[in-house]
Amino acid sequence: MVDLVKNYAITTRHIKGSIIRELLKLTNKPGVISFAGGLPDPHAFPIEWLEEVAVKVLRENSKAALQYGPTEGLAALKHEIVKHSKKLGENIKEENILVTTASQQGLELLGKVFIDPSDPIICELPSYIGGLQVFNAYSAKLIGVPMDDRGIKVDKLEDVLTKLQKEEERYKFLYLVPDFQNPSGVTLAEDRRKKILDLSNKFNFLVVEDSPYSEIRFEGKAPPTLQSLDKCKNVITLRTFSKIFVPGFRLGWVVANADIISKMSLAKQAMDLCTSSFCQLIAAKFCELGYLDKQIELVSKRYKEKRGVMLDALQKYMPADAGVRWTKPEGGLFLWLELPKHVSMDDMFLEAIEEKVAYVIGSAFHCDGSGTNTARLNFSFPTLEEIDEGIKRLGNLIKKKLVSKK
Amino acid sequence: MVDLVKNYAITTRHIKGSIIRELLKLTNKPGVISFAGGLPDPHAFPIEWLEEVAVKVLRENSKAALQYGPTEGLAALKHEIVKHSKKLGENIKEENILVTTASQQGLELLGKVFIDPSDPIICELPSYIGGLQVFNAYSAKLIGVPMDDRGIKVDKLEDVLTKLQKEEERYKFLYLVPDFQNPSGVTLAEDRRKKILDLSNKFNFLVVEDSPYSEIRFEGKAPPTLQSLDKCKNVITLRTFSKIFVPGFRLGWVVANADIISKMSLAKQAMDLCTSSFCQLIAAKFCELGYLDKQIELVSKRYKEKRGVMLDALQKYMPADAGVRWTKPEGGLFLWLELPKHVSMDDMFLEAIEEKVAYVIGSAFHCDGSGTNTARLNFSFPTLEEIDEGIKRLGNLIKKKLVSKK
Repeated sequence: MVDLVKNYAITTRHIKGSIIRELLKLTNKPGVISFAGGLPDPHAFPIEWLEEVAVKVLRENSKAALQYGPTEGLAALKHEIVKHSKKLGENIKEENILVTTASQQGLELLGKVFIDPSDPIICELPSYIGGLQVFNAYSAKLIGVPMDDRGIKVDKLEDVLTKLQKEEERYKFLYLVPDFQNPSGVTLAEDRRKKILDLSNKFNFLVVEDSPYSEIRFEGKAPPTLQSLDKCKNVITLRTFSKIFVPGFRLGWVVANADIISKMSLAKQAMDLCTSSFCQLIAAKFCELGYLDKQIELVSKRYKEKRGVMLDALQKYMPADAGVRWTKPEGGLFLWLELPKHVSMDDMFLEAIEEKVAYVIGSAFHCDGSGTNTARLNFSFPTLEEIDEGIKRLGNLIKKKLVSKK
Repeated sequence: MVDLVKNYAITTRHIKGSIIRELLKLTNKPGVISFAGGLPDPHAFPIEWLEEVAVKVLRENSKAALQYGPTEGLAALKHEIVKHSKKLGENIKEENILVTTASQQGLELLGKVFIDPSDPIICELPSYIGGLQVFNAYSAKLIGVPMDDRGIKVDKLEDVLTKLQKEEERYKFLYLVPDFQNPSGVTLAEDRRKKILDLSNKFNFLVVEDSPYSEIRFEGKAPPTLQSLDKCKNVITLRTFSKIFVPGFRLGWVVANADIISKMSLAKQAMDLCTSSFCQLIAAKFCELGYLDKQIELVSKRYKEKRGVMLDALQKYMPADAGVRWTKPEGGLFLWLELPKHVSMDDMFLEAIEEKVAYVIGSAFHCDGSGTNTARLNFSFPTLEEIDEGIKRLGNLIKKKLVSKK
């Protein structure tokens, strides 16, 4: 066989399977209740509606559904996305849309289109691991800005930007998950959204709004989307059907100004020519028949119940007055657990697996390696019974750890 | 708005819409008979089988079909691919397979995993434009090796390799479309396949076998695939369901040694996490029920008829004894037209559009810009009547040109 070390590209030689991936494999052990994944609840999949729609598309529109389509996406789906965006307060045109092979492709396109090696990219502390991995793979220099329960701290952000500007660095964009953030569950406050857009103009950077969950809201009033507030076309929004419809279609979209869409489209052409026409036309018909709105309602109701059970269980099983805290997200799929600084959830992970409960270590979401005392807990996938039992197991383990650390 | 010139990555700033893409837009003009695309015949799509299978998958396996899947691909599909590969004489295991979002993603993965800027990549003259575009986007230095009617000239290839080795260049792979090549329709002869594998060991390079059409054979005996001849695991094979099933599913696969598959899988994870589970399970069931073999038979029969009509029309309408030649492919979707050296099919293109017939200029497939006297003609998409009429229009134009050049 040839000498692969010589043949691989430099970045490939240095890519290793991430530790997170290895840890996640352990969560599949039999009997383990996993809060580690980020999977939608398969019991909420709209199977019957889908059968009706799939058959309709095959009978009425098979020549388009089974053929190659334009890289930008099929007109029928873009038309439905424009309509859907209006409900989110966004006034966009079809030229502002690129249909993607789900949001992960949107992230890859960001890397490809914007990042040169060692470019500083600004993100939240913590931030979505799938985004950080892409930006790292493009050799970005990740700069984390701390969050509180109202989202990224805009004064700290301004400090970072001022410093970068002084250093004449080529920072390109700020990466945000503003709604029910993955991992923290936190939603960015409206005044901060406006401040971020002001800064974007002042400091000449793009704002990436990665928003897979915003429509899965259980209560409270949604702040306006960054895309809807943006007067200067500085916002690039990534959206996906994975959480509001099904992930198995690999279907998402990017909203941005037409110039960026056209660059991304050229890059996407090399990546996969186009996204599945079959999946696009089924999704378009699903929207057209009003099923998407119903599905969002159904999913939100179900996840609200699950979040409630998890919050109750945390209240019941976590040690009181011991500095253990968690977020109370108004929507989405995740909440965030924080222990006192001196207790490491990284170190606790393998013991948790032995106790048959799993989470994702919070440090994995911190580009600076901090956050070892935190963890992400998913409530969309496990059943109600599993949530109660799993939090009980985790609570007992944490109680034990806190006692032993005293 | 922010200053995008500052924000785009260097490669993005230099990406421009390709001339080919602009030319292809012209082929959509009303009344134009196009031999330019590479689309399968939509009249051959297996609509009824698909409806049966899609409904079955939704009823029997919806939880897997609509959920995220493993990056490497779902076991059910990999199992069918292993079985299918046996028919091609290839003895592979599931660990040798990566399911991709069609072959284009396979090409992108090659770029990502293997190419550092200015690496020499060796390809055929002419070669598949979609491959050349990806390798160019990764800033490869493309080196073309001439072909004849038995495929790439292996003596010339050895000369190139010897020279590169002397220059201590980091050439990584040889890119081949060995069966019914896109664009030329030529099939690589068996003795040359063996010689290429010997060279691959001697000179330490990988051989990429991009083979979307090999199963669409009209007549003659298929030479063994490079993958089946390869004893040293130096061959990376790209395959796709686009031509033997439907392109609208965006479904393909890579076959390679497990180490390469694992690197590619990590890269794919960042690109789109996984390929549509829904499409994968439908394809798996389609194979399992024996429909794929029937579909391949059906498509081959149809394209054979179309090729026949195109060959007859060329015979009828092209000027005799004037140095106009064309290939007679034993399968696939394309044939290759060659005019005397002094006549440019690039220059003729806009006139052809005025005469309401379109082709792809042959120079687009030549990494060195040569081949201006050639063109690729597709026979899978147009109807039998269109093929006859289109070749008539093209023949008349070429006759006119040859007279005026005398």
